[in-house]
Amino acid sequence: MNRGGPGGPGGPATILAVTMGEPAGIGGKLTIKAWRRQPDLAAPFVAIDDADRLSRLAAELDTGVPVRAVATPAEAAHVFAEALPVIDTPLAVPATPGNIDPANADTVLASIETAARLARSGEVGGLVTNPIHKRSLYAAGFQHPGHTEFLAKMAGPDVEPVMMLACEGLRTVPVTTHLSLKEALAALTPERIVSQARITADALARDFGLTGTRLAVAGLNPHAGEDGTMGDEEKDVIEPAIQALRAEGFAVTGPHSPDTLFSAFMRKTYEAAVCMYHDQALIPIKTLDFAGGVNITLGLPFVRTSPDHGTALDIAAKGVADETSLIAALRMAADIARHRAAAEA
Amino acid sequence: MNRGGPGGPGGPATILAVTMGEPAGIGGKLTIKAWRRQPDLAAPFVAIDDADRLSRLAAELDTGVPVRAVATPAEAAHVFAEALPVIDTPLAVPATPGNIDPANADTVLASIETAARLARSGEVGGLVTNPIHKRSLYAAGFQHPGHTEFLAKMAGPDVEPVMMLACEGLRTVPVTTHLSLKEALAALTPERIVSQARITADALARDFGLTGTRLAVAGLNPHAGEDGTMGDEEKDVIEPAIQALRAEGFAVTGPHSPDTLFSAFMRKTYEAAVCMYHDQALIPIKTLDFAGGVNITLGLPFVRTSPDHGTALDIAAKGVADETSLIAALRMAADIARHRAAAEA
Repeated sequence: MNRGGPGGPGGPATILAVTMGEPAGIGGKLTIKAWRRQPDLAAPFVAIDDADRLSRLAAELDTGVPVRAVATPAEAAHVFAEALPVIDTPLAVPATPGNIDPANADTVLASIETAARLARSGEVGGLVTNPIHKRSLYAAGFQHPGHTEFLAKMAGPDVEPVMMLACEGLRTVPVTTHLSLKEALAALTPERIVSQARITADALARDFGLTGTRLAVAGLNPHAGEDGTMGDEEKDVIEPAIQALRAEGFAVTGPHSPDTLFSAFMRKTYEAAVCMYHDQALIPIKTLDFAGGVNITLGLPFVRTSPDHGTALDIAAKGVADETSLIAALRMAADIARHRAAAEA
Repeated sequence: MNRGGPGGPGGPATILAVTMGEPAGIGGKLTIKAWRRQPDLAAPFVAIDDADRLSRLAAELDTGVPVRAVATPAEAAHVFAEALPVIDTPLAVPATPGNIDPANADTVLASIETAARLARSGEVGGLVTNPIHKRSLYAAGFQHPGHTEFLAKMAGPDVEPVMMLACEGLRTVPVTTHLSLKEALAALTPERIVSQARITADALARDFGLTGTRLAVAGLNPHAGEDGTMGDEEKDVIEPAIQALRAEGFAVTGPHSPDTLFSAFMRKTYEAAVCMYHDQALIPIKTLDFAGGVNITLGLPFVRTSPDHGTALDIAAKGVADETSLIAALRMAADIARHRAAAEA
């Protein structure tokens, strides 16, 4: 494994793959800006992107960034210190910032597939995905609610992905994700809470290297139903799940009143909060740290993280996009890859 | 009006009424602790409480607090600098910290009713309610979901209360409140969003003295439904409400993706966030500032605020309860009373 370039103290550096994301969005500029911040990275990376497009975007920045096409991640690791390495993945039509074009959807998906294949084969330590624009992909026939489900499908038939959001001092897991709130209520079952919580607790140990793996399970209703006076799901769905998890030996508390679970005091009492729906998990993360949040997919046979923001089509042409979250996602992926390698050694 | 005791610069001090709340909870100790922090208050207050109970609780503190029974708020304003004034409202049975007793429910309600009556008559500038324990009140026949609805009922048949949560840098309004999440989805109508938003915008001007009254309306579903791919409520319910509010001349944006609406950047773009359900409004407030959050009831013919926490039965005997939120509620009530008096002058 490569030992050149940025690496954590004492461990081998693991090269990561960074996908293209929506080419009309801010992803390309973020990738280039992240390369310029090598001292802040924990591992080198290779872009799975259109090399011409990245060269043009790089030329727009005040200080040019050299872009170099490479054939393999191993080659990329050797050039990373001098140039941004790219495994060329050509677009069908040139991308215009702010204007999505479904003609490029196949290339967007090919970038993700290449990165996932390299991660499965061990050629990269993990993949970091730039944001995609789902409506554009849907127009081209894409049928998954998002990256998370697409990657799980690629990983195999029995893979259950878990979406984790992390910022400084808080990790949350929504057990239902990209569903309308009404659909999320219907999709909530004890079995789903148990399996998502189990994968989460295992990941806290294996992927994050934590010895404490305390889970705090949120209620669904205001005040966690207040003894059944505001909803039955706590008694009928969530408490049975908590009991089942305890019977398996997991350290689990709850159901907690959702509004107090993310307070500064409560955040110190668990390693991850198991949340019942998307915004219950996302609101506290983005309220606390919009720029630095990271999205991590647990339960996959490879490491995958993502910045916790969208394609930002509205500012894609301006060059003002903030790479903080991508840097955080790159650091997190490198950390997880090291912990996972150590756990498997 | 009283000019002695704590008062804002230039304006007359307005005495406030502080209710008993659940006598087995932390309310009494908080009232006593708040009296000791006179330099941090913007107005004096009178407790509507059991005088013997407050005297006993005061004696448990390191530094004793003198408690004095008074007959009227005017008398209370005169004694406030030297003693904690109480309009005596005797309990049926002695209260034991941590153990609720429905035998005292009538006194708990009588305290709220007295405070509301004094506020309606103008003898106090507003009321600040200590937390109640609803299960105890339900056992005694109470039929309201909480303080907010009880006070609205007392205020008149056509009064629509609006619950606002406020902390430093953020105000939120849940248009549905103490309902299960399933019931909240069913209760969401354009009419309700419009009337709650209208009352909110009016209060920002009248009660908070703001010239800007920008409202940001949250979506209901993840990513605000993402163009209808995750739920229809944005198109069917929320957007029509926004259009109606704009037609009335209100400054309204949305529907916003709920997870990003409370980020540091977005918080600067509005004076209040109009939220679709209880926890969408409460999670960001308590995540940012658990101790200092204040609950304000808008739309009443009198001023009412409340600390943003519960009865904390588990710590009621320990004397460790934090009066920060009650102090914030007292300051907020005094501010609103002044703004409202100025607007009506």
